Amino acid sequence: MERQQRVTQRPIWRFREEDKAAEDDCVTVEEPLEIRVEETPIAVVMRTPRHDFELAAGFLCTEGLIQSPQELGAISYCTAAEPPNEENIVEVKLAAGVDFDRQRLQRNFYASSSCGVCGKASIEAITCEAPALTGDFTVPLAMLYDLSERMRQAQDVFEQTGSLHAAALFDPAGDLLVLREDVGRHNAVDKLIGHYALRNEPVPAKSVLMVSGRTSFEIVQKARMAGIAVVAAVSAPSSLAVDLARESGMTLLGFLRGRGFNVYTGEKRIAV
Amino acid sequence: MERQQRVTQRPIWRFREEDKAAEDDCVTVEEPLEIRVEETPIAVVMRTPRHDFELAAGFLCTEGLIQSPQELGAISYCTAAEPPNEENIVEVKLAAGVDFDRQRLQRNFYASSSCGVCGKASIEAITCEAPALTGDFTVPLAMLYDLSERMRQAQDVFEQTGSLHAAALFDPAGDLLVLREDVGRHNAVDKLIGHYALRNEPVPAKSVLMVSGRTSFEIVQKARMAGIAVVAAVSAPSSLAVDLARESGMTLLGFLRGRGFNVYTGEKRIAV
Repeated sequence: MERQQRVTQRPIWRFREEDKAAEDDCVTVEEPLEIRVEETPIAVVMRTPRHDFELAAGFLCTEGLIQSPQELGAISYCTAAEPPNEENIVEVKLAAGVDFDRQRLQRNFYASSSCGVCGKASIEAITCEAPALTGDFTVPLAMLYDLSERMRQAQDVFEQTGSLHAAALFDPAGDLLVLREDVGRHNAVDKLIGHYALRNEPVPAKSVLMVSGRTSFEIVQKARMAGIAVVAAVSAPSSLAVDLARESGMTLLGFLRGRGFNVYTGEKRIAV
Repeated sequence: MERQQRVTQRPIWRFREEDKAAEDDCVTVEEPLEIRVEETPIAVVMRTPRHDFELAAGFLCTEGLIQSPQELGAISYCTAAEPPNEENIVEVKLAAGVDFDRQRLQRNFYASSSCGVCGKASIEAITCEAPALTGDFTVPLAMLYDLSERMRQAQDVFEQTGSLHAAALFDPAGDLLVLREDVGRHNAVDKLIGHYALRNEPVPAKSVLMVSGRTSFEIVQKARMAGIAVVAAVSAPSSLAVDLARESGMTLLGFLRGRGFNVYTGEKRIAV
């Protein structure tokens, strides 16, 4: 348990006005946790490590998979997994005499997110095959500094509730191509990408995806599947978002607010 | 399509300092969308209506369920569902000659969220059975006004990244019982509830759950399953969160910041 970190560091470039500095930045750890009940994989949740047994127990209770905490037996990290994974797989035993209805467990979910994470618990295993993001275009610094204001203006048309997430695609000149909104950030990204799919067109290779809020694994994964090489967000990325972006050859910006942002990877596409 | 609303109104009580006023408030619409491929239910996503075909197409692309947009055939609302549901079920046909591997589709997800939403698309169908929230205790207004600051102080101990969600349970006197953090708000709530489950104790009947950010269906559903009667959030609830809270007899507060908040339902538990 002691090894489980909730915060980790990543090297970044911090852009402020005309200045740029190499620093280390703290990011929240995001890792998959697979929950097994009596050796059957029930769900993989993307979570911040620590309190994993509480997470598994709470999940089974609040999803209606067990009727009361009395139905819980021993909970442990799974050491039998192949390859061994002592931190990201939790095995839940049920109390003696409690019926285990596999079908009921499987019926009880709705899928929400990313690809290939079923019964897997490593970044290698949960990412789909996708072409490398080789796009060698650059984006002007001044255009990036304008992005948050441009998205906000486009949102103003619709925003009345203070609770709609937005995903917007811009060309390198900073012109808005598509904006979609949804209560779920990942849905806004899917709608935007689906806009092109329905027209049977690829997402423009030279474009920047701007999302409100944070970037998790899921957002980077979706952008990567659509071939989007530059992703910027108003708030912070998770560790897994940074790592997947780096592996994919993506440019990932966070805390893009006014005339400043952090670059977590792919700084080469920013033209100063 | 024209009937699809993204924003709707709910009657609220707006508390500011010593004043309280009945108003109507705009909330973002959240509804389940079931995505079917060749008549097989693939996923239910909680989304804001409109651009549903884009959402379905984008989802299939970004989750790696189809290899390219060329594999898409006709997309339509499902009129054959029983009961008919013309707005919340989308049927995707694949292009002629495209193989459809049901097993592959089902393997490709990880479950993330709430209970019973598989193949269902109405609020009646997606909520589990849970005892009514009959708790007739009250919470002092002054204590509620202190909550956001108390949670922030408790978070300061851990918060270094600006991107951890928090869920905190307080007793009616405003004393912190448990605080949990996670990159996912729903995980923070599960950890908190799991804290009691592992001790084989019920969540205290007279308590207030405070969450950072927004309240979606999922948060209200989890609180309800744990018997938590008062839920407060820093930001806005969705329409489905409000409706489920009302049906459950829950007290739901939003925009709790300093000396003000909105009460979306269950105002009787607030002692002025």
